[in-house]
Amino acid sequence: MSALGDGARGPVGRALHAVLENVRAQELGGALADYIPELAKADPDGFGIAVASVFGRSYASGDASHRFTIQSVSKPFVYALALAEHGSGEVLRHVGVEPSGEAFNAISFDDQGRPANPMINAGAIVTASLIGAAGADERLERIRVGLSRFAGRELGIDETVYRSESATGDRNRALATLAKSTGVLATDVHDAVEPYFGQCSLLVDAEDVAVMGATLANHGINPMTGERVVADAVARDVLSLMTSCGMYDHSGQWMFEVGMPAKSGVGGGIVAVTPGQYGVGVFSPLLDRVGNSSRGVAVLRTLSQEFGLHMFDHPKEPASPVQEIRTGGSSVLVIVRGVVDFDAVEEIIHRSRIAADAVGATTLTLDFTAVTAVAPVAVSVITGLADDVRSNGTDVRIIDPSALIGRRLEHSSITDPMP
Amino acid sequence: MSALGDGARGPVGRALHAVLENVRAQELGGALADYIPELAKADPDGFGIAVASVFGRSYASGDASHRFTIQSVSKPFVYALALAEHGSGEVLRHVGVEPSGEAFNAISFDDQGRPANPMINAGAIVTASLIGAAGADERLERIRVGLSRFAGRELGIDETVYRSESATGDRNRALATLAKSTGVLATDVHDAVEPYFGQCSLLVDAEDVAVMGATLANHGINPMTGERVVADAVARDVLSLMTSCGMYDHSGQWMFEVGMPAKSGVGGGIVAVTPGQYGVGVFSPLLDRVGNSSRGVAVLRTLSQEFGLHMFDHPKEPASPVQEIRTGGSSVLVIVRGVVDFDAVEEIIHRSRIAADAVGATTLTLDFTAVTAVAPVAVSVITGLADDVRSNGTDVRIIDPSALIGRRLEHSSITDPMP
Amino acid sequence: MSALGDGARGPVGRALHAVLENVRAQELGGALADYIPELAKADPDGFGIAVASVFGRSYASGDASHRFTIQSVSKPFVYALALAEHGSGEVLRHVGVEPSGEAFNAISFDDQGRPANPMINAGAIVTASLIGAAGADERLERIRVGLSRFAGRELGIDETVYRSESATGDRNRALATLAKSTGVLATDVHDAVEPYFGQCSLLVDAEDVAVMGATLANHGINPMTGERVVADAVARDVLSLMTSCGMYDHSGQWMFEVGMPAKSGVGGGIVAVTPGQYGVGVFSPLLDRVGNSSRGVAVLRTLSQEFGLHMFDHPKEPASPVQEIRTGGSSVLVIVRGVVDFDAVEEIIHRSRIAADAVGATTLTLDFTAVTAVAPVAVSVITGLADDVRSNGTDVRIIDPSALIGRRLEHSSITDPMP
Amino acid sequence: MSALGDGARGPVGRALHAVLENVRAQELGGALADYIPELAKADPDGFGIAVASVFGRSYASGDASHRFTIQSVSKPFVYALALAEHGSGEVLRHVGVEPSGEAFNAISFDDQGRPANPMINAGAIVTASLIGAAGADERLERIRVGLSRFAGRELGIDETVYRSESATGDRNRALATLAKSTGVLATDVHDAVEPYFGQCSLLVDAEDVAVMGATLANHGINPMTGERVVADAVARDVLSLMTSCGMYDHSGQWMFEVGMPAKSGVGGGIVAVTPGQYGVGVFSPLLDRVGNSSRGVAVLRTLSQEFGLHMFDHPKEPASPVQEIRTGGSSVLVIVRGVVDFDAVEEIIHRSRIAADAVGATTLTLDFTAVTAVAPVAVSVITGLADDVRSNGTDVRIIDPSALIGRRLEHSSITDPMP
Repeated sequence: MSALGDGARGPVGRALHAVLENVRAQELGGALADYIPELAKADPDGFGIAVASVFGRSYASGDASHRFTIQSVSKPFVYALALAEHGSGEVLRHVGVEPSGEAFNAISFDDQGRPANPMINAGAIVTASLIGAAGADERLERIRVGLSRFAGRELGIDETVYRSESATGDRNRALATLAKSTGVLATDVHDAVEPYFGQCSLLVDAEDVAVMGATLANHGINPMTGERVVADAVARDVLSLMTSCGMYDHSGQWMFEVGMPAKSGVGGGIVAVTPGQYGVGVFSPLLDRVGNSSRGVAVLRTLSQEFGLHMFDHPKEPASPVQEIRTGGSSVLVIVRGVVDFDAVEEIIHRSRIAADAVGATTLTLDFTAVTAVAPVAVSVITGLADDVRSNGTDVRIIDPSALIGRRLEHSSITDPMP
Repeated sequence: MSALGDGARGPVGRALHAVLENVRAQELGGALADYIPELAKADPDGFGIAVASVFGRSYASGDASHRFTIQSVSKPFVYALALAEHGSGEVLRHVGVEPSGEAFNAISFDDQGRPANPMINAGAIVTASLIGAAGADERLERIRVGLSRFAGRELGIDETVYRSESATGDRNRALATLAKSTGVLATDVHDAVEPYFGQCSLLVDAEDVAVMGATLANHGINPMTGERVVADAVARDVLSLMTSCGMYDHSGQWMFEVGMPAKSGVGGGIVAVTPGQYGVGVFSPLLDRVGNSSRGVAVLRTLSQEFGLHMFDHPKEPASPVQEIRTGGSSVLVIVRGVVDFDAVEEIIHRSRIAADAVGATTLTLDFTAVTAVAPVAVSVITGLADDVRSNGTDVRIIDPSALIGRRLEHSSITDPMP
Repeated sequence: MSALGDGARGPVGRALHAVLENVRAQELGGALADYIPELAKADPDGFGIAVASVFGRSYASGDASHRFTIQSVSKPFVYALALAEHGSGEVLRHVGVEPSGEAFNAISFDDQGRPANPMINAGAIVTASLIGAAGADERLERIRVGLSRFAGRELGIDETVYRSESATGDRNRALATLAKSTGVLATDVHDAVEPYFGQCSLLVDAEDVAVMGATLANHGINPMTGERVVADAVARDVLSLMTSCGMYDHSGQWMFEVGMPAKSGVGGGIVAVTPGQYGVGVFSPLLDRVGNSSRGVAVLRTLSQEFGLHMFDHPKEPASPVQEIRTGGSSVLVIVRGVVDFDAVEEIIHRSRIAADAVGATTLTLDFTAVTAVAPVAVSVITGLADDVRSNGTDVRIIDPSALIGRRLEHSSITDPMP
Repeated sequence: MSALGDGARGPVGRALHAVLENVRAQELGGALADYIPELAKADPDGFGIAVASVFGRSYASGDASHRFTIQSVSKPFVYALALAEHGSGEVLRHVGVEPSGEAFNAISFDDQGRPANPMINAGAIVTASLIGAAGADERLERIRVGLSRFAGRELGIDETVYRSESATGDRNRALATLAKSTGVLATDVHDAVEPYFGQCSLLVDAEDVAVMGATLANHGINPMTGERVVADAVARDVLSLMTSCGMYDHSGQWMFEVGMPAKSGVGGGIVAVTPGQYGVGVFSPLLDRVGNSSRGVAVLRTLSQEFGLHMFDHPKEPASPVQEIRTGGSSVLVIVRGVVDFDAVEEIIHRSRIAADAVGATTLTLDFTAVTAVAPVAVSVITGLADDVRSNGTDVRIIDPSALIGRRLEHSSITDPMP
């Protein structure tokens, strides 16, 4: 990927590299997962970071192309596939969305018999079972294909890890059997746990993980391939869930310190997302006491603090979405810029009205050339504005060369934009 | 407030009013809080909504000026005062930030002896005790003054409610005594619980609550008064906490369905925030089974869905921050628009570099006129870009009439913007 | 059984009958178990009581010969079989002995991965798996034979209930799979749960249950058949367990009010034991809120209070074990009576010594004719006494026509008893 | 106490001494309690054992006269005082009797707002508050006097420990305040916790503790002083409670291994009881991981196993309570022995009836000379027998020189015993 090579030498790539070297120097320690022998064979020094943006470029540093098993990082993406297939209402009948305050393998069922959320194993197994297929193999294949679309390349399975997960997976079989006894698991135990073991054994690298996250950041469209993988609403629901439940019993601390929806796996991977902006993938197999990649956590803490990726690190003191207002005779031109959401539209309306009233405008033109995005709610509010203004005898026109608003307003009452 | 009256008749105000009438028609029922007689005397039909934006205007509908006791809605704001006074490190030594998965009056202390978070009573009491003062009365006065700054007007205390809270507050005294026994409460029990009872008894209306929320949305600056109440970082930390722990044991469901950091009180109030954009205040004293305002929850669910206020409802498919690139001879002009954060700066650099390379540019000009905000990280990346480009013999200039970037770049290596 | 017929008309039988009629008149209500259809078909009015003593007689009243499925009443007896086969050390490696404070189907594993105790389902399943056999059918047959020896007759299985338990037993399969995952279940899940479902489906009546309890009361020997079913130590361990864990999360209240080790089943049966004296069996299928037979609980409360069957209702102000001391010249004859345990032997020694010292005895004779039992510790203490006394030149003789002490003192230093 | 000196040299004393030396040789280790400085000053090598029987003699070995603070060993005895003052019904309204499965200082309140049981601190504080008195000092004095009656001597308070407990007792104050908030604590917090701190600071030695336990074993009568301290029913209730809840979260294991109702304290003391027989007191201040005296636990395990003190270690294969039956013409003489409880009376009746029927008896005489105790229920059953037999024209007589049965049968239908 030439952009990456290019990027690595550019200012963004250099910034990422500095983070990696800084974290490496901290010598954080940790231990390899060892519940199956294959995980204990990982190179403890492996360490890579990748960032992918919604604009479709990615940057990487270190061992970002080193393959490892995705493990629990798969959970939010399989949940996305289940939401896409069944809708959130049906999925919520099977798995809850509350943090359990417990470890990943907790026996945490709510009073409706649902696993607390799809991030703990019980919930992830039930989620996997919702992927419609004739049997275990077909279900795993559907999951593999779905996650490949998130990653933008064909993912393969580490068969040795898969067999080992299956051979030692009695606790997960027990969780599935419990789910069956409460009625939330509709398939056979085998047909739920085997696809789950398989999904955990998918091989990815940090760049894959970054792209998978960026697909969630980008409202469900893979920014590298341009393919829509899941709907807007699905991506949003998954990010909500990662925010509440992604880091098990440390979700509060994570939100406080990092503020990126995230999910870690015992293979050493972490995916994190700045909604609307980035996916981040980190790989380093040495795990801390609670089972997260030690260096991965440190990288994300640094990115959040130094790169402003905390979801509440919005730029401060925003300039007005009204760039300029020009009046000539009874004509008013309002030049708008940036994102026009409910907040901005309110400012635009307020200032347009004052200007129009001041000159007794007969024409009000809104220029959306410098606008980067328009929220749906803004469309209906602008419709209301147009109706109000027009009822006062004023003509309303909108310049919208990117068709950000026009294409949503077909059949609306707004006059076609000026040429 | 004339903007409100004006707004009520405008498109934004009409939209709010429609939400209120729609929710009123649902006849959701509920019960008045009755643990002290005063709360049971509230008018069960009272119902008001207010929205305040970071641009300093607010809109209201229904009984938005009806006064009620703030109760637990005070908790995030007193936490903000404590963070402002001591910094998050010190405050974290006294109160945690993990969701407890339990009710508001839970006995939930972590293994360091800290209350789980500042939203449960035990944590709120310890938080109140951190407000430095000579005694209970002085502490309460400091809290009252602080919350008044959030609201933008002088708040008063309902003395009858205060006395009643104090008279029936043995459980809260027990929680404080427990906190004392674990060492996280440094004051006398009396000097912690009395200010806490007092803060719960502050009288607010829905508009006050909306402005208080908007102050958090606006990075700590009250958008009505322009006063900075707390630092950026404090506002962000409080929003993080409200995201994780605001709705007690339903925080996951709330994040999933509503996606606005929020806090409710048994007086019938709810504050909710769309970071960077709004504060919302709702008042309706009939409470649902878990103690939240029935109609308040319905209003916020509607606002989230219909107004796109869920924090992850970013506008889809954003246009590029690069509005236009003009080349003339060996000069390149890049016209930038909207918010320039890490994401946007990466796009800007990438496209600038391609254009500059194509023509062998000797001058690269970045026009920030249509930019609404610049993130700190963008400044350092742009610095890196300037250094790179200049080392190739290219002159870099930035047009920045709003001084969004220039004032942060004093002493930097970037050439002064062109006039 | 003629003794029963006889007894029913005698004073003991009449007393039992009065208890039954008194409880019947209380109209306690309750509900039939309905988790499988077969249990819901029971006659709600069925009601029987049986009492069996260690002397080998039993008394009954009401529907004491009505057959029902033993359900959880089987648990202590299968535990006894496991202890008999493996010893308590090995069994404790698989199942704990702590009350779980939770319901019968709780997921309660301790930090060693053991089910909390053998009375909750998880523990009962693991216990069943310990009965050595080649497969599920053989294991169930061994359990059936073992419990038949406790009951003193061949017990049969209700095949319809068995099939229904198996068909709906996913939760129990889940518990078994969890036990397998923690390593305490060594067999296949199927080979553990099927015998467990089968043991629950054994058909018994109240008289069977009383005899089973009496076998525990009688130190492991069935007082009706004279067969030793399990060793002394096993019976004691099972009674200890029933005391701590028999009544699930009401064991404390049960101990306080009833004071008989006990176990109930959802088929309506309860077994209770007064150690050293009786087994009681009650049958009435209407269950109270926590799943115990409503009338069964009332019967046992009454028996405890009116018949003095609480384990701590020892007769008050006991007479001395020394019935009489006769002195003639330098001979002292001590006539002993009742139970000679550590307590009694101390009294006997103390008074014998005083009497012997008073007359400068050359012969001390202990007459054990009226003694009903001798504890092992008493033998060694008496040996010590004999050595002491003999070292003073006094001859010690013991009259022991029931050979209560003599047969344990072979090779001891005590002079043979006088003829 | 000369009996002790005497006993120490006798076979009982020597047996105790062997236990002490055996346990001392195991070098069990442990740590001194150190939550207040005074406890950390104890001599770690201190080690004493005392046993007191219901016949009023005691035996001791080691540092059995070394004074230490009673701490939690006081709890069952203060509970006894509360039961004596109010009855169990009223006390149960304030404190439950279920094991909490948690540590001594657990916050464990049931759904009625009651502390789980009187052995955890919260329950002990509420229990102390029930001792009627005008204030804290009077209440403590009443407790001191009551426990002194259990011990048979005037106990004093270690004022240094008391002040230190009070100074560091915030957690206990919190527990009391919680109890106040749920309504189960009726006094001021101060008036509950101060007497509690005081009772914990009472100075006792192992001999005191043994006598206190023996008073419970002896149905509430101090076997040394002959004073009735509490009623039969109170002693029984306290023993029931110690059985269920005495050893905190190890009550099941304790019942299984030791089988003596018991209570330990952080001062190094343990009281244990074999109901109807002994009290045991052990002192050794080195505590194990769960806060019990390491050597104390080992001593009791040994006494249980080697001395047969487990409550279910009844002598095996009891001889019949019918010592002999003599028939002469139409007269039958039944010589009874030992304890006549419900079990024995049934045997007596059964064999008497057979003998009487065989000869067509006109006179049936029951000789109770060798009887050591008669249970209340036996009296009513014997009355029934007498009525039955007499209705067949047979005269019934009872020889009862110790008046074990006669004094309960005044006004009964049984003919006066023969001279």
